[in-house]
Amino acid sequence: MTVPDEGSSRLETVVDGVVARRTRDVARAITIVENGGAAARELMAELSTRPQAQRRCQTIGLTGSPGVGKSTMTAALIAALREAQRSVAVLAVDPSSPFSGGALLGDRIRMQSHSGDADVFIRSMASRGHLGGLAAAAGQVLRVFDAAGFDVALIETVGVGQSEVEIAAAADTTVVLLAPGMGDGIQAAKAGILEIGDVFVVNKADREGASSTARELRAMIALSDKDAATGDDREWTPPVVTSVASTGEGVVDVAEAIDAHARWASEHGELTRRRLLRAVEEITSTLTGLLRSRLETEPLSEQVEHLAQEVATGRVDVHRAAERLWERVVDGGTG
Amino acid sequence: MTVPDEGSSRLETVVDGVVARRTRDVARAITIVENGGAAARELMAELSTRPQAQRRCQTIGLTGSPGVGKSTMTAALIAALREAQRSVAVLAVDPSSPFSGGALLGDRIRMQSHSGDADVFIRSMASRGHLGGLAAAAGQVLRVFDAAGFDVALIETVGVGQSEVEIAAAADTTVVLLAPGMGDGIQAAKAGILEIGDVFVVNKADREGASSTARELRAMIALSDKDAATGDDREWTPPVVTSVASTGEGVVDVAEAIDAHARWASEHGELTRRRLLRAVEEITSTLTGLLRSRLETEPLSEQVEHLAQEVATGRVDVHRAAERLWERVVDGGTG
Repeated sequence: MTVPDEGSSRLETVVDGVVARRTRDVARAITIVENGGAAARELMAELSTRPQAQRRCQTIGLTGSPGVGKSTMTAALIAALREAQRSVAVLAVDPSSPFSGGALLGDRIRMQSHSGDADVFIRSMASRGHLGGLAAAAGQVLRVFDAAGFDVALIETVGVGQSEVEIAAAADTTVVLLAPGMGDGIQAAKAGILEIGDVFVVNKADREGASSTARELRAMIALSDKDAATGDDREWTPPVVTSVASTGEGVVDVAEAIDAHARWASEHGELTRRRLLRAVEEITSTLTGLLRSRLETEPLSEQVEHLAQEVATGRVDVHRAAERLWERVVDGGTG
Repeated sequence: MTVPDEGSSRLETVVDGVVARRTRDVARAITIVENGGAAARELMAELSTRPQAQRRCQTIGLTGSPGVGKSTMTAALIAALREAQRSVAVLAVDPSSPFSGGALLGDRIRMQSHSGDADVFIRSMASRGHLGGLAAAAGQVLRVFDAAGFDVALIETVGVGQSEVEIAAAADTTVVLLAPGMGDGIQAAKAGILEIGDVFVVNKADREGASSTARELRAMIALSDKDAATGDDREWTPPVVTSVASTGEGVVDVAEAIDAHARWASEHGELTRRRLLRAVEEITSTLTGLLRSRLETEPLSEQVEHLAQEVATGRVDVHRAAERLWERVVDGGTG
């Protein structure tokens, strides 16, 4: 809990910079979050002392398979938001980095077209290597964006990883990008993406099959939307928008669909509900991180090792082992 | 804890079928694991009462970006293992299913070429929707494969998601697939895949750039391998193998590299160490699942809701909220 004065004052400087939306300090703060540990905890504690910490960006989650045009759509949305005089911070969760430089290259290109604009901040973050979990790290980055006073925070993730999809789905508005021939309505319904998308975009709409993909999606949405028939507006019916992000075609429609959802969510209590749910998830994942760190220290670590030997050799099943450990945590974790 | 007699006896029948390696019952058991909850816990408990639960398959994790040829390599490895008279069970963790039918289609094709062979079992599992976490579900599927007496369990994951990579990395031997032009050594080093791979395969080696990708990887491995210079065989230096899985070229080399690692790991205590680590992770993730379910029930759920409101509005930072909750869990979680 005690840190050297130098560290504290440096942290305060970074936080001062964040609330003044100095790009360099926003970037520094995110690096601290990425590195995790005590410094990240102190940063978040210091941030929470500032009145700015109580404001919230409009958050947009953008997800979809590799190749559907997420980076291009992100760039197009940034341009549209800037035209509307809105500041925007982008967090590109970059799971492809273990195996390719694609996303990083994309970032560099996007960075260039907005460099010098203090109202645009773009940062990519690796999806792996976060001890407290990716969701917790992304949540903390959002707090930094909040405090920096951006109007919009856009989180771009590849919709193929469990954690990555969950992060995009935790936004105020979740946009699911598809491309013709890459997905079909039945697959979408089966895998539950109908539930996570507030706005569906069939991108690369100049390709064959775009209109049938859009039609199929609309049919699936209509089927799953029980209240649509009664005209009950307490339920949101996700629109399906077509676009060609690379030429800008339809990007205005995407932006309008996002805003329409944001207005609806705000008016119907959905925004409050989602942010509460997100906070529950953030607290829960931070708590499980705390539990994990306790398990790594005495006296619990010894018990874990002993139980692991029993589980590894098949003498005890994992549920029973976890239950025994739970009893230790609750009864004697501190003793 | 009490279940209807009918349920119990049905569960026993499934477990009988698993240990007899009846394909239908292995499939049923995995469905039970996928559905989670009490039935999955009972299944694992019942399995652990059988002597067969104490044996372990050789597990191979296979990971890499979309498009490097994982499915084709899996099919080729199955064929190579079958030629060596070894039985093999495959779990394809299928994160692409939300957006495309690619992996499922691949499964169907692979299924056909081995259908009727009771010594080959192939199953795909969605990467999302597991309440206790993907890693916990995958671990339980492995226990089913163990009890069914397969010689080899192969887990194929797309190396783009945080959870997916972790699962592949938890195998006895982890194979990382790359393709020329898709990744380079520097990216690999940066993203930490040098640490997870026991065997690297540059697949699609008939494409341009294959030899330079392999050379670059070898150079990076040599740099990171401090003991290689002293010839100390306590450390494993991951080989880089080239292959064209679609024609079968180099697949024998891949299989041999995997076996060489498995022998080394067994002889140097690495196998025991990894399986212990995997058991620690399984217990830990099961325990965090247990914690999550406690947080959803009274009296903790009320406390979570209250804290979430404080966090959502920025009055309390998430770490402080988690710490307060932890005190409640330890002190009053049962009261």
